[in-house]
Amino acid sequence: MKWRTIFSSKTMGGDEEVKVFGMWASPYSRRVELALKLKGIPYEYIEEDLSNKSALLIKHNPVHQKIPVLVHNGKSIPESLVILEYIDETWRNNPILLSQDPYDRAMARFWAKFIDEKILSTTRKVSFTTGKEQEHAIEEVTEQLKLLENEVKGKAYFGGEGIGYVDIVANFLVFWFGNLQEALGINIFSQHKFPFIFEWIQKQLKIDMVDESRIPKDKHLTYIRTRLAAFKSASK
Amino acid sequence: MKWRTIFSSKTMGGDEEVKVFGMWASPYSRRVELALKLKGIPYEYIEEDLSNKSALLIKHNPVHQKIPVLVHNGKSIPESLVILEYIDETWRNNPILLSQDPYDRAMARFWAKFIDEKILSTTRKVSFTTGKEQEHAIEEVTEQLKLLENEVKGKAYFGGEGIGYVDIVANFLVFWFGNLQEALGINIFSQHKFPFIFEWIQKQLKIDMVDESRIPKDKHLTYIRTRLAAFKSASK
Repeated sequence: MKWRTIFSSKTMGGDEEVKVFGMWASPYSRRVELALKLKGIPYEYIEEDLSNKSALLIKHNPVHQKIPVLVHNGKSIPESLVILEYIDETWRNNPILLSQDPYDRAMARFWAKFIDEKILSTTRKVSFTTGKEQEHAIEEVTEQLKLLENEVKGKAYFGGEGIGYVDIVANFLVFWFGNLQEALGINIFSQHKFPFIFEWIQKQLKIDMVDESRIPKDKHLTYIRTRLAAFKSASK
Repeated sequence: MKWRTIFSSKTMGGDEEVKVFGMWASPYSRRVELALKLKGIPYEYIEEDLSNKSALLIKHNPVHQKIPVLVHNGKSIPESLVILEYIDETWRNNPILLSQDPYDRAMARFWAKFIDEKILSTTRKVSFTTGKEQEHAIEEVTEQLKLLENEVKGKAYFGGEGIGYVDIVANFLVFWFGNLQEALGINIFSQHKFPFIFEWIQKQLKIDMVDESRIPKDKHLTYIRTRLAAFKSASK
């Protein structure tokens, strides 16, 4: 059997319309923006107020009514991991986010899913629970981070010689998590406890575009503290 | 920019080792088996007792310790949706499960994720809750099914002329859900309420290999009833 061409490539023409509906503190929309920036795809960014979503967001993502949504020439694509694959398959210029090897691709998808469905999801539990329930969530996310730590040990980038799919997905986890635990006054995720994850992410920060894409720390801390205060006053 | 070759193709040689760790009543491992059967890939099936998982399963999926796992020439791939993409990228013979078009691929991934993370996950809530909580889960899954119904309206297959990724993912949803609601004595999902989903799945059943892959109904009903009884006696 011959090698197959799986999907067509695109070149950026003047008639391309690329929009991102996002929210500045969301690791999910930040990763979409970073992928577009790394590939050099110009896009229009639309900031959403999540407490008062626009009719346009709901039109583009009627199923989940959530950010991020990528709109490309009138077609809407929701879900950040789905969007990252779409970006990589549509614009085949460097950096190529997913390897050509089916097993490497499977491992990248597996770990991206793990970061979202386990680590980010358990972290949300850590934020919005108290007492025993929070202690349990802290143990759970610590175990999950250990699994990731073990996986990235000794890796420069997750899937190859340069920044790719899992690196982009994990990158925001680190800033976001760091700010969150500072606001919560807990210490789950430190360089001392997870040296390989930190080394891995710090390498990525040497790329200017990655460093410039960090969630602004002070603004993020204020935002998290406001949300945590609202949670505490609601659960009293 | 030229068209790119994304991944290499495989031919089935005598030296291929393909194993599936599964559980007969799991829609997740059934879909992996169906994809392999449709592509004509011989495999060895290993049935797991989920109440007493084998050391081999844990070795092959140390992170989640769950079925299904595909083992291909010694390499382990967990997570059914990740496995389906791996199968499609590794064995490029028909049926091709995912289109070549990036947008069609994105939509297939979006809906497969929706079926797993929303419909199957809410259905689990329906099974293992009672009273108000169960009523709420029933409303939730009904809304989710309506979204899917609207999406498949008028489609022969989800993504093209023949059976593909989302068809295989949704297929077991129907048998599994049908048996479950029969055991629960509820009626959420009927041909009357969701005619397009039923028409869509019934077309797939005309493919012998799909029809033969159904979860055996009586055995499944007995299995579900035993699990529900255990849940009821535990929650008393």
